[in-house]
Amino acid sequence: MDRFFKEAINQAKKGLLEGGIPIGSVIVHKGTILGRGHNKRVQKGSVVLHGEMDAFENAGRQEAKVYKESTIYTTLSPCPMCTGAILLYGIPRVVIGENMTFLGAEDHLRAHGVEVIVLNDEECIKMMKDFIADKPELWNEDIGEE
Amino acid sequence: MDRFFKEAINQAKKGLLEGGIPIGSVIVHKGTILGRGHNKRVQKGSVVLHGEMDAFENAGRQEAKVYKESTIYTTLSPCPMCTGAILLYGIPRVVIGENMTFLGAEDHLRAHGVEVIVLNDEECIKMMKDFIADKPELWNEDIGEE
Repeated sequence: MDRFFKEAINQAKKGLLEGGIPIGSVIVHKGTILGRGHNKRVQKGSVVLHGEMDAFENAGRQEAKVYKESTIYTTLSPCPMCTGAILLYGIPRVVIGENMTFLGAEDHLRAHGVEVIVLNDEECIKMMKDFIADKPELWNEDIGEE
Repeated sequence: MDRFFKEAINQAKKGLLEGGIPIGSVIVHKGTILGRGHNKRVQKGSVVLHGEMDAFENAGRQEAKVYKESTIYTTLSPCPMCTGAILLYGIPRVVIGENMTFLGAEDHLRAHGVEVIVLNDEECIKMMKDFIADKPELWNEDIGEE
């Protein structure tokens, strides 16, 4: 398994251990991890720190050209907000753990020329399936559903 | 002037006084402000807390139906990231101070059925024009441009 994708899974597991939503992400520039993140809805009461957003935040302020040479790894298909952040900063490549439990705005990414790679990794699918079965209300809150 | 829009401008001015980027936002539900925010790139070194995102964060965890009955006011046309957050949470109405200095993803909002009202308020336009002239590099960083 790609070591960066594995790190995104590790971030998701860390979130789960903290009592949070198990979605993790890493942003990688030329073989170096710029930022790691995981969903912080429970841990920080945050409604903006999805896994990908937390990875952006932890990567911190970067030059525009750095984002444009980076890849973001995420365990779950990116929601409209995270998709928008990817487009804002011009990340050209997104590696997605799975889109079976939630299909984000992948078409919108592709329409803007972003390369989208979907792994449909069994471990990611199981992690989200188990989580959604365990805490459906928390999950619905995270994606703005009732 | 609408008191909620005025509060968004006040947030932008607050950001400017803090040495930050002058963009402010408020989220309003049935006549009550749920959250106020302003861009925090400089103040917190944040790459995700645009004005609108900061307003979401300060509004905190809300029920899905509350977002779907709310209006977001912002002094500047929302970038792809903020647009994505508005779509994620299903905010049905966006009041925009101006789109002359920066045109965000308004068409994407409209395509998803969001009501978009653009005021092109002179004070907002002047505030951003002056800021962009004063700190072009900081502004470019905020919108992911070189």
